[in-house]
Amino acid sequence: MAFMSIIVAVDIGGTHLRAAAYNHNQFQHIAYKRVETKASEPNAFSRLIKVIEDIWPQNEKVDAIGVSTPGPVDPHTGIVMVTPNIKEWHDFPLTEKLTEHFGIPAWVDNDANLAGLAEWKFGAGRGHHNVLYLTVSTGVGGGVIIEDRLLQGSHGLAAELGHSTIQVDGPLCGCGKRGHLESFSSGTGIERFVAEQLNAGRESVLNPTKKNSAYMISEAAKQGDALAIEAYSIAGKYLGIGVANFLHAFDPSIVIFGGGVSQSGPLLFDSFEVSLKEQVIHPRYLDGLVITKAELGDDSGLLGARALAELKLQK
Amino acid sequence: MAFMSIIVAVDIGGTHLRAAAYNHNQFQHIAYKRVETKASEPNAFSRLIKVIEDIWPQNEKVDAIGVSTPGPVDPHTGIVMVTPNIKEWHDFPLTEKLTEHFGIPAWVDNDANLAGLAEWKFGAGRGHHNVLYLTVSTGVGGGVIIEDRLLQGSHGLAAELGHSTIQVDGPLCGCGKRGHLESFSSGTGIERFVAEQLNAGRESVLNPTKKNSAYMISEAAKQGDALAIEAYSIAGKYLGIGVANFLHAFDPSIVIFGGGVSQSGPLLFDSFEVSLKEQVIHPRYLDGLVITKAELGDDSGLLGARALAELKLQK
Repeated sequence: MAFMSIIVAVDIGGTHLRAAAYNHNQFQHIAYKRVETKASEPNAFSRLIKVIEDIWPQNEKVDAIGVSTPGPVDPHTGIVMVTPNIKEWHDFPLTEKLTEHFGIPAWVDNDANLAGLAEWKFGAGRGHHNVLYLTVSTGVGGGVIIEDRLLQGSHGLAAELGHSTIQVDGPLCGCGKRGHLESFSSGTGIERFVAEQLNAGRESVLNPTKKNSAYMISEAAKQGDALAIEAYSIAGKYLGIGVANFLHAFDPSIVIFGGGVSQSGPLLFDSFEVSLKEQVIHPRYLDGLVITKAELGDDSGLLGARALAELKLQK
Repeated sequence: MAFMSIIVAVDIGGTHLRAAAYNHNQFQHIAYKRVETKASEPNAFSRLIKVIEDIWPQNEKVDAIGVSTPGPVDPHTGIVMVTPNIKEWHDFPLTEKLTEHFGIPAWVDNDANLAGLAEWKFGAGRGHHNVLYLTVSTGVGGGVIIEDRLLQGSHGLAAELGHSTIQVDGPLCGCGKRGHLESFSSGTGIERFVAEQLNAGRESVLNPTKKNSAYMISEAAKQGDALAIEAYSIAGKYLGIGVANFLHAFDPSIVIFGGGVSQSGPLLFDSFEVSLKEQVIHPRYLDGLVITKAELGDDSGLLGARALAELKLQK
């Protein structure tokens, strides 16, 4: 392993571009800055360079840059195919451009993979060797650690776990296919179910003429609204079916949930637990299995980007 | 890496117990023997010892023993929980007993994992780093190689890919759950579909009063029987849906099919290919993806057991 001094990490988020510098032997960043992402404005790469330069350590050597971005992205070539957070990038050779500018190696991977990597290295998954991380928010994303290594796949497209068919001809997913886990258990899936039921005349405190967000639905559920409760319960049931599939595939020792919808507590996880237990084909999958929440919150992108760079430098 | 001389491999198959000795630097075994398995007879371990002793090299050092058996088995502890091929074994500490008797390390894993490992090391998957192996026969089993390592999981229960729910509340699977890939695309699934349709009065050259095997159905299909053709076509369609899920999860560079039903050619694979292309969420998953048949046939158990022992010795 090369001696490491400083890692620069970058998170291309939906609202903010963030950069931080980390000393290898400490958890807290030594420098940090964020600016608005401005997804649709031109010159995104210049804005990125600027925010990185603003946190660049003056008197110390930086060893590598790690970047987290929503994908699809090819971590093997460092090319960002497209990303919702920077509209002008199409097949953009991000790591090559960063290396050209800063003269040091750079790596990139998608945000869900890196949130999983961050939780394994710095968060809820510390000490585990086989980790399943799922983010449940607008969509459902996955990050998988197998024997202390990030699962990336031959094209860098592994762990797209939200796009796993669990019901052929089920509801339409954001990706255009049907019956994916994401179409049932994401915020979007919960909203779709409620809208369908309201359109069909179902009674609820929710207003059928407005868009009801997953958050509004969870608030209605907490007030006892039967439709809202059912919407979360169904999402949890299908989440259990999906996670059972992933236990059968990866057999992790911990499942970590991140993302806004996963903050819904028993509303989502009561039915999830029933369904997971029903669906596993052997109780041994559940022996010692930890099911828990992500610990790193907003920092998971930066810490994942940092962990990626550290992992690659160690190779 | 320790210097390796001889590996002894054992395959606990449904009809035969087989043992072979391999010299590290050559593909062909230097000794081989098989005897009937006799699944229901007592003293299975003594029979196993005997067949191993019969092929034990006289003047050379054996480094390790590898064993392939249908599971569930825990490769981390070497305990065979149950196996259909030796009925008297329940939580049987197989590798511990072998080490006690022969004085050298022993490892075990299930037959599908080891067939995948064998194809990666000696067969159709040579040179690939990320391999998805699927056996399609009475059931559907999986073996996965990720970055040149066998995916085993925290309890050793990973890659149970036949038991992946693709249709909630779908047909009953052999495991007792519903809507698994195996319930659609295995020989058993094909037979179930035909039996249901015949019972419902569907016309066919197949006899509604008899059990029609997957093989008999494939013969009927080759003669143009519409029901038989449809049965294979549906199995292939669902196989495509399942494999798309696995591409999204593992993103391999090769998919290798073993098992009797996978010998059905276009009968199964025409609809498989259509369905796989329809279901992948990004065409990049298919870039350079090799889809092919297993090469090792009956030897895959022995060669996988050998590869397992070699892999573990290298650690």
